[in-house]
Amino acid sequence: MIHRQEITELLKSPPIGEDVTVMGWVRAWRGNRFMVLNDGSGAETLQVVVNGEDFPEETIRAIGFHACVGVTGELIESQGAGQAVEVIAKEITIYGGTDLSEYPLQAKSQTMEFLRENAQFRMRTNTFSAVFRLRHALAYAINKYFHDRNFYYLHTPIITGNDAEGAGEMFRVTTLDPADPPRTEEGAVDYSQDFFGKSTHLTVSGQLQAEIGALAMGKVYTFGPTFRAENSHTSRHLSEFWMIEPEIAFADIDNDQDLAEDFLKYLINYCLDNYRADLEFLDARIKQAEKNMKAELRRPMGLIEMLEFTVKDDFARITYTEAINLIQRSKPYKKKKFEFPVEWGTDLQAEHERWLVEKHFKKPVIVRDYPKSFKAFYMRLNDDNETVAAMDILFPYIGEMVGGSQREEREDVLRTRMKEMDVHEDELAWYLQLRTFGGCPHAGFGLGFERMVMYVTGMSNIRDVIPFPRAPKTADF
Amino acid sequence: MIHRQEITELLKSPPIGEDVTVMGWVRAWRGNRFMVLNDGSGAETLQVVVNGEDFPEETIRAIGFHACVGVTGELIESQGAGQAVEVIAKEITIYGGTDLSEYPLQAKSQTMEFLRENAQFRMRTNTFSAVFRLRHALAYAINKYFHDRNFYYLHTPIITGNDAEGAGEMFRVTTLDPADPPRTEEGAVDYSQDFFGKSTHLTVSGQLQAEIGALAMGKVYTFGPTFRAENSHTSRHLSEFWMIEPEIAFADIDNDQDLAEDFLKYLINYCLDNYRADLEFLDARIKQAEKNMKAELRRPMGLIEMLEFTVKDDFARITYTEAINLIQRSKPYKKKKFEFPVEWGTDLQAEHERWLVEKHFKKPVIVRDYPKSFKAFYMRLNDDNETVAAMDILFPYIGEMVGGSQREEREDVLRTRMKEMDVHEDELAWYLQLRTFGGCPHAGFGLGFERMVMYVTGMSNIRDVIPFPRAPKTADF
Repeated sequence: MIHRQEITELLKSPPIGEDVTVMGWVRAWRGNRFMVLNDGSGAETLQVVVNGEDFPEETIRAIGFHACVGVTGELIESQGAGQAVEVIAKEITIYGGTDLSEYPLQAKSQTMEFLRENAQFRMRTNTFSAVFRLRHALAYAINKYFHDRNFYYLHTPIITGNDAEGAGEMFRVTTLDPADPPRTEEGAVDYSQDFFGKSTHLTVSGQLQAEIGALAMGKVYTFGPTFRAENSHTSRHLSEFWMIEPEIAFADIDNDQDLAEDFLKYLINYCLDNYRADLEFLDARIKQAEKNMKAELRRPMGLIEMLEFTVKDDFARITYTEAINLIQRSKPYKKKKFEFPVEWGTDLQAEHERWLVEKHFKKPVIVRDYPKSFKAFYMRLNDDNETVAAMDILFPYIGEMVGGSQREEREDVLRTRMKEMDVHEDELAWYLQLRTFGGCPHAGFGLGFERMVMYVTGMSNIRDVIPFPRAPKTADF
Repeated sequence: MIHRQEITELLKSPPIGEDVTVMGWVRAWRGNRFMVLNDGSGAETLQVVVNGEDFPEETIRAIGFHACVGVTGELIESQGAGQAVEVIAKEITIYGGTDLSEYPLQAKSQTMEFLRENAQFRMRTNTFSAVFRLRHALAYAINKYFHDRNFYYLHTPIITGNDAEGAGEMFRVTTLDPADPPRTEEGAVDYSQDFFGKSTHLTVSGQLQAEIGALAMGKVYTFGPTFRAENSHTSRHLSEFWMIEPEIAFADIDNDQDLAEDFLKYLINYCLDNYRADLEFLDARIKQAEKNMKAELRRPMGLIEMLEFTVKDDFARITYTEAINLIQRSKPYKKKKFEFPVEWGTDLQAEHERWLVEKHFKKPVIVRDYPKSFKAFYMRLNDDNETVAAMDILFPYIGEMVGGSQREEREDVLRTRMKEMDVHEDELAWYLQLRTFGGCPHAGFGLGFERMVMYVTGMSNIRDVIPFPRAPKTADF
């Protein structure tokens, strides 16, 4: 049995004058005397004073950046500035290998690309441990928010036989021998002999199945991985990412907006209230990095400032038609500063969304009632027959944070929309049945988890907010 | 905006004499007068008194089993037995379709197979809503347990390029055209042209990546879907299931056992303390179903009795060698009642495990130090060079609930074990590096989530504890 004390717990009420045993990784090693130790229990580090004459030469030599060390010693009030307490080492154990000369990471800062390639070690850095603590914080807050409000967590399937979700390109899941698959008489691949007896893919969304849950248990949410097989090499896209999709019965688009606004504010407040040290570290890191940047490349606000900006006011709420009118009357539009055209019937682009949020309303904006032409078949048709009860929530810097809608609960209208959009009825017979039997007005939305982690941590590449990113040509670890 | 009151919240302190608005699904409709409504917010139902003369004929006709109904009326102390309060309906809204004559479910009980085929509706039944509330409860309790103890939730990859995890058959993930894949000059399928630039599969375990997390952040856990492409048609196997894998640094096999025992007891106590009504319903359901069963087919204990049995005492802790000796000295062994042989070097079977738990120790049992011959390459070799620091936790009725181990932290020993077991070093260079740089003793375990949900709900088929089961030839919804 190994006994140790966690640094985070120890620092809550430090037992001055007592011997403690801590174990962790060296974050800094100054003057062969001061060792800064972090054990992963939190952002906190503990300074260990190592008197060289008390330890064998090889112990001192083995201490270095990210060495794994156990220390027993007396906890005292710190003699130096910078920390309240420190430990005078009496015993030191070096764990793992003792030769760090080949260790890929160095105490000076590395490029993000290099750290991505060395993801087996990047969580030991100050930046990534803060990012992954905040990722954890957000995940926990999501579960807590819904649990406290009588939502039930629903695991929707990862492998799906539905081809109708329609949110993007899909990955095939198969156990057929790709070198020599079974064939039908016509020579096509015979998927009836595949593992599931048909062609299957990785899910792009759990929404349709979440509707089953909502129309039985009232309020449910999903929180699971989703997939896109698009060949996108951007800093905003992953092939595998996590998504949260609440779905609520007896709700229209107004209830949906209220829920989403309350939920997003809760998540951000949870981090501001409970993970302040990590946010302050990341805030300072960004300000440092932006010092030598051109003004137009800098973020519109500091990290904490932007999070506080997000939760401070009611979100603005406008219709898509109002948004188009506002943008067409704007200065940048008149001065032809926008790259993309703005006219009724085309989707808003990030530059338009950011103008609405950052320049015009100066707070997050919910845009609703989009033209049906570029929205999904399941969104509820408004009485104008031209728009659907869809809503997007726009945030500064990042643009769209949430997309949601009231679902079409009228069976005949849904059937017509499916025909118009070439969605095959026979594949979604169960989905139509939800309208025939015991259906009701219901609504929901989707939040891309990594997008939220990016917003809260200020990281600019989505590959740096998930432990092991998957992207085209990238499936390491 | 739709306004309603949730039944669970309403019943916490019922506003007698006030008008309330509730919406939900009809669980029972008695004598064209008494409507029992559940809205999914909890196990609680609310009785609505419908005076036929106050409503149009078609409203009364549309009320039926699982009809979706909104009611406004006065909440009063109940005139009849069986409930404390009831609502006298003033307004009734029928949602969704109004003709239930073709509704697949009926008020009488259906077979489990039939409900599985109609999974779009089964969550509306008393049994399945209780099961899925408990599934939620367990998921929430898992996150809360770890969060409260400074563990960080780590999302390990679903799509993996590692072929070395070795826990079972894998599903291929691909975007190549299966009818005509690109070929190398030698005629093999050219996976370098696949989406990720190599052959990829669905994960069978997040453990190896979780070790990365533990050796940086101290204590982490995964909670995500895992996959097995085995052609198993049993009531205990799924092709897609959820797994929890905590991994802790500075820990040996004893720390691992302590954590697992404390964790399992916490989960069960959480359900006993917070979801008693659902457990009592399921307990009674099982007792009813077992009335006409032969004694040997019945469960060894009632549901709640078995859960209380699990948490009441310290788990027994023995070595594999002790277990073999005990079984060889047992009555059923001497009377040749066991189907499978028992000798040192072979794995324990469910019948042996259940004898240890149910007959011999009469409490859950942790067995450790298994022969290395049938255990994984990453388990720490004991000083006897014959056994590894692995442990299984055995529960009544279900057998193995948890499997875990201390991980081999000695690079040279690990390298030798990998060679012996034909695990390719070059694929796991990063895994070996975790030993070279900043490694330490560490340990972890895996809990199959659905197995735990089965244990807590008493459901006997694993397909009935996951909303949309995936199994050979089964990928509906």
